[in-house]
Amino acid sequence: MTSLDDLPIRDDLRGLTPYGAPQLEVPVRLNVNENAYRVPEAVALDIVQEVARALPEANRYPDREFDALRASFAAYLGHGVAPEQIWAGNGSNEVLQHVLQAFGGPGRSLLSFTPTYSMYPLLARGVGMDWIGVPRGEGFTITPEAVRAAIEDHDPDVVFLCAPNNPTGTAIPLETVRAAAEAARGIVLVDEAYAEFAHDRSQTALSLLDEHPRLLVSRTMSKAFAFAGIRVGYLAAHPAVVDALRLVRLPYHLSAITQAAAVAALRHADEMLSRVDALRAQRDRIVDELAALGYEPYPSDANFVLVGGVADPRATFEALLARGILVRDVGLPGTLRITAGTEAETTALLEAMAALSGAGSAAE
Amino acid sequence: MTSLDDLPIRDDLRGLTPYGAPQLEVPVRLNVNENAYRVPEAVALDIVQEVARALPEANRYPDREFDALRASFAAYLGHGVAPEQIWAGNGSNEVLQHVLQAFGGPGRSLLSFTPTYSMYPLLARGVGMDWIGVPRGEGFTITPEAVRAAIEDHDPDVVFLCAPNNPTGTAIPLETVRAAAEAARGIVLVDEAYAEFAHDRSQTALSLLDEHPRLLVSRTMSKAFAFAGIRVGYLAAHPAVVDALRLVRLPYHLSAITQAAAVAALRHADEMLSRVDALRAQRDRIVDELAALGYEPYPSDANFVLVGGVADPRATFEALLARGILVRDVGLPGTLRITAGTEAETTALLEAMAALSGAGSAAE
Repeated sequence: MTSLDDLPIRDDLRGLTPYGAPQLEVPVRLNVNENAYRVPEAVALDIVQEVARALPEANRYPDREFDALRASFAAYLGHGVAPEQIWAGNGSNEVLQHVLQAFGGPGRSLLSFTPTYSMYPLLARGVGMDWIGVPRGEGFTITPEAVRAAIEDHDPDVVFLCAPNNPTGTAIPLETVRAAAEAARGIVLVDEAYAEFAHDRSQTALSLLDEHPRLLVSRTMSKAFAFAGIRVGYLAAHPAVVDALRLVRLPYHLSAITQAAAVAALRHADEMLSRVDALRAQRDRIVDELAALGYEPYPSDANFVLVGGVADPRATFEALLARGILVRDVGLPGTLRITAGTEAETTALLEAMAALSGAGSAAE
Repeated sequence: MTSLDDLPIRDDLRGLTPYGAPQLEVPVRLNVNENAYRVPEAVALDIVQEVARALPEANRYPDREFDALRASFAAYLGHGVAPEQIWAGNGSNEVLQHVLQAFGGPGRSLLSFTPTYSMYPLLARGVGMDWIGVPRGEGFTITPEAVRAAIEDHDPDVVFLCAPNNPTGTAIPLETVRAAAEAARGIVLVDEAYAEFAHDRSQTALSLLDEHPRLLVSRTMSKAFAFAGIRVGYLAAHPAVVDALRLVRLPYHLSAITQAAAVAALRHADEMLSRVDALRAQRDRIVDELAALGYEPYPSDANFVLVGGVADPRATFEALLARGILVRDVGLPGTLRITAGTEAETTALLEAMAALSGAGSAAE
């Protein structure tokens, strides 16, 4: 019987296991930073109608330039971003992959500040480039000085700044982004997947695009737009950067129904952002109430909280799962990462944590 | 003003232009081998309902293993193919990219027989591997002996056989596929994107899967299922091959609505294949009638015909375009590639060709 080891796979893939958190059916899923709210009925209806309009012509290849979607993203982002500055893909992972295919690849390097989004090193390996992880400072922050020093030390071809950072929730001040853009000779990408959940949404690297043609700002519809299932990521950058990405994308990479669904959802940005506000309140509630229980939650600008002071993360993970609550052990000692849920889900989480804490099994 | 040349793109991308035929709005589009028939109303309705069912939960990541879709593909393919032998992606280009990421990459090589699908060398370059194009024999055929000799000469890591071949329409006999599978130490992929249009559909490499664990057969819904706009490609292979592809795919690469739409469309396979039969008839009509006009169409098992004996392909292309008919100049001297359309579209094409031929401007 043939097994994976018998096949001529690339040497650097041998012994690996596929990326991805377990997909378990439990009542309260707070493990992969999804938006806790279902797509609202009125929005879903609008999307279905837009998809229905696109379907009869699905025998034709989709608009390779996704012009209607670019215009929708540009209007949504504001900050003077024009449609020709927009790129999009099937999830922001694909957008980041395009960036690395165009500006990275064999013989080049990607630098980021760890702990950070665990896909970055995998994306680098996928295009054959080196990965450089530079540890963050106290409380997972990164200062302008630290960024400058890291870029001078390693001279990377591409820098990814995850802002706010996954899995820590840490914001990155705009002066740190500016320092990176000034110090780097290559591409600096700010991954703003969770930007809409920030305490101050005006602090976005979009405001720096005009100054820096090698600065890219990526976003996703997975989080704020409750669109994890639809797979739509995008970025804003100088139009010449978009020209570069056209060279590496597979032709017609965005389907007609993906384009239609995203255009329809973006028409409902106000409604989606009101739910983001509700999730921000639950995020802050997790920070406040777990701190009161004696845990050490890190400040978060995302829709999740990295909770420190967990004596035995594995035991707490299992105890929560036994109560039907799924969180994430991201492998940082003494921590668990918990997504902000609906008010009811968050209440269930906090009551469970309080019970575990009272039993002396978790925070001690 | 920053231009593409000012950016730090990869050296091997400098000076390139993006892949893709012009997307022109003309009455008769016979240039990119789309299925000429719109998605039937009843099928579209079923798809819309399936998408509508998936939408409320779109806040959650999609089924990473797309189990329902795998089962649908396995049932459609027959030949004893099991769901765990299925892989899928956003178009067969993505599926082929996954194969090259897992089994190719830097320091490895991809061999195919030219002229063939122009994306193969681009996909190879995209993952940093070498491309080896071995010229086909008389009438664009490839014999078992030629395949064995090419594989012995070049010792490739991956072999792609496009069957029927794009852009020539040429079938590949099963004994040639078997010869490749026996001679190669690496992966042999048979790209059966146009398989449903073959004169004899039973001649598929699916029948050889049990004998050869390193043999892969890729398909697409773009052509037979009129799904070019939805972007769904897939392959069948040994389950260990599927394990390898899991290592390189981006997590959640297939959206919930892509999965839903494909599952719904596959329920209507009989209806879709009846339209394939209509297109096959038009394909044969193009061959017969253009031959009668003095052109030299190559035998085709696909939904297009490579037409030789075109004195000035550029002039004929322009003359057809002036009549609202878009065909493809694939760069093979003295030829144009023409997709089989509906009966009315094919009639328009043939009348135009007859007029051009009669005017002495095309075939002489």
